[in-house]
Amino acid sequence: MRFEENFATRVSRLKASEIRELLKLLDQPGILSFAGGIPDPALFPTQAFGQAFTDALEGNAQALQYSVSEGYLPLREWIVSEMARNGVTCSVDNIMITSGSQQALDYLGKLFLSPGDTALVGWPTYLGSLAAFNAYEPAFDQLSINGNRAAEDHQSKAAAAGGQVKFAYLSADFANPTGETVDRQGREGVLQLADALDCAVIEDAAYQSLRYDGAPVPPILALEQAQKGSIEACRTIYCGSFSKTLSPGLRVGWVVAATPVIKQLVLMKQAADLHSATINQMAIHRVAEGGFDAHVAGVRDVYRRRRDAMLQALDRFMPKGVRWTKPEGGMFVWVTLPAELDGADLLARSLETEKVAFVPGRAFFADGSGGNSIRLSFSCADETMIAEGMARLGRLITAAKVGQA
Amino acid sequence: MRFEENFATRVSRLKASEIRELLKLLDQPGILSFAGGIPDPALFPTQAFGQAFTDALEGNAQALQYSVSEGYLPLREWIVSEMARNGVTCSVDNIMITSGSQQALDYLGKLFLSPGDTALVGWPTYLGSLAAFNAYEPAFDQLSINGNRAAEDHQSKAAAAGGQVKFAYLSADFANPTGETVDRQGREGVLQLADALDCAVIEDAAYQSLRYDGAPVPPILALEQAQKGSIEACRTIYCGSFSKTLSPGLRVGWVVAATPVIKQLVLMKQAADLHSATINQMAIHRVAEGGFDAHVAGVRDVYRRRRDAMLQALDRFMPKGVRWTKPEGGMFVWVTLPAELDGADLLARSLETEKVAFVPGRAFFADGSGGNSIRLSFSCADETMIAEGMARLGRLITAAKVGQA
Repeated sequence: MRFEENFATRVSRLKASEIRELLKLLDQPGILSFAGGIPDPALFPTQAFGQAFTDALEGNAQALQYSVSEGYLPLREWIVSEMARNGVTCSVDNIMITSGSQQALDYLGKLFLSPGDTALVGWPTYLGSLAAFNAYEPAFDQLSINGNRAAEDHQSKAAAAGGQVKFAYLSADFANPTGETVDRQGREGVLQLADALDCAVIEDAAYQSLRYDGAPVPPILALEQAQKGSIEACRTIYCGSFSKTLSPGLRVGWVVAATPVIKQLVLMKQAADLHSATINQMAIHRVAEGGFDAHVAGVRDVYRRRRDAMLQALDRFMPKGVRWTKPEGGMFVWVTLPAELDGADLLARSLETEKVAFVPGRAFFADGSGGNSIRLSFSCADETMIAEGMARLGRLITAAKVGQA
Repeated sequence: MRFEENFATRVSRLKASEIRELLKLLDQPGILSFAGGIPDPALFPTQAFGQAFTDALEGNAQALQYSVSEGYLPLREWIVSEMARNGVTCSVDNIMITSGSQQALDYLGKLFLSPGDTALVGWPTYLGSLAAFNAYEPAFDQLSINGNRAAEDHQSKAAAAGGQVKFAYLSADFANPTGETVDRQGREGVLQLADALDCAVIEDAAYQSLRYDGAPVPPILALEQAQKGSIEACRTIYCGSFSKTLSPGLRVGWVVAATPVIKQLVLMKQAADLHSATINQMAIHRVAEGGFDAHVAGVRDVYRRRRDAMLQALDRFMPKGVRWTKPEGGMFVWVTLPAELDGADLLARSLETEKVAFVPGRAFFADGSGGNSIRLSFSCADETMIAEGMARLGRLITAAKVGQA
């Protein structure tokens, strides 16, 4: 059977992530890798999880049973308190547990996007958001945080693409891939734009807990609620995750939104995978209750030192004409190369000579631009590796500039 | 914001499951329930899972880390052996782990169905298959196992609906909701039809391990491979699950298919939820390795007794004009009432008088027919409850017949 001829039209939009293919190469020994954007497993609360799984199963076969699509109630209650600490007042009815925030992006694409509808995303944006939304065959348009494009401009572009603007997607804190944070004014600008477009805002808060310095900015959902009173009046849909704080492998995240959105997401989840794993929700709840803040503070201390080491080493080793972001948190530094250099070419060269790995920037752009950028992650390398890696990267870029000149 | 106006067109196809709404009512004390089609948690290998989670985490933070979308390799290797025992020769590249077989149905709908394409399903069929496929806006046409409809007939109907027949979906062993098994001839008929239509066959094997008597019939995929040699030449996509044997709450199932299908599913999963929970796959693997057959044999013994008790009690208590299936395995007996009775009316009456619960049959029919049928599950009731429940049901139906006459 030639399956290809039977696949749905959306399948033409699914493609192997260049990054994923690349990462396979980068796992070779001897390579100093700043490519993977994953947490350091040495920082997982492994012992606490051991206890939590044991406790969850102790005389409780329900930990292995089917459970409700909305998610484990005590965990949703814990999230209600956590959201309150972040300035969002909501109830358990505003929360659904997802299998990581990646699933929230998939479901929100499924909920809003008919083929030809438009999703506003950053240029660059989280690669996984493009992959998730692509399955629903949207057009992408560039979300401008600083409001230099009028709503009418977005609308006419969306109409030309055959649909309407359905949402603006952004990660406002230490975004993947740039590490940048949208300030309060920028967040309010996004809300204003969404009001004008009457579209949703998808706030991806995956990195929010990983702030190393600077004052926290309230989530977009908190700012909107401050304006409009009730979460039921809010268009912002907040996607949270335990992947960057407690464990990514358990696949537990959550969505906070007005109840009409949560109700549809629950129906969707029921039809798509019934519910997220019962015992994982119980274990996450136990570990979070047992000391979320203390654990995350420890994680932050380690990553803060790595970020500092990376920024210092970039200062020391990068040649003129190279710029990079100064993230206040998260896992990433975004490096903009001189316009004539290409991140993918640089990586190919690096694998031959300097053996330092990173992710070329183009894949993060919905329009395929951004060739002269690369993403560096500091989450999984210690300070010595970072210093050595940035020294190699500096040599590599210096040599590439000379080669180009 | 009026979210409703912004939802994708597919959302009109999502609806609250009547059954789910119903089940909320049926959880009241004093009700004898044969409604929920879930395993008895008393039969879960809870202790073995306790040990398996502890072992998986012992000095192994990778159990909490991101992992590959394909699934945990040792588990896929175990599945290769298990499939071989069922007559299917495949490699780990033919297998992807899913979050339960429900996720496999969602992904297969997503992979094959463009709006207006046709899915062939049984009349009745598993309710969750209709829910999963509905998100991709297909038409449904009735799959006739005994081949009394020609391929051309299906094709012209599919063309009229605006697409083509993309797959035939069926559960061939002790299907939910009927408990019936498709015999070898029926399976070969489905393959012949699929060959004529050049469409895929989705074989939902969720209940396959729960056979209580009678000779096993080879899976459709095994029959096809026997005809065509290699799994790469097969159009059948096999969906397996640990939900009915080890634990549903861990959400671990699998798909077996030709590599072009698996490759697309892996891309899809990567974009939709990255991977199924790492530690759950490890725990399932350890428990399965540690004694899958012995455990499942114990489960079968218990369910066999319950099935026997239900069939005996139905014989004893049902009035004339009522028919029911005699399942060789699984969890369900399907009862066909006299044509003038309606399962939903009967349930409403039951909640007032006899306090016995079951699922009205109409929801399992894509065309809304089947009103005079009900589904009974024997998996969660002991023999005494079953005898008492069937006595009440017999009185209820007898009274309803009199009322109708």
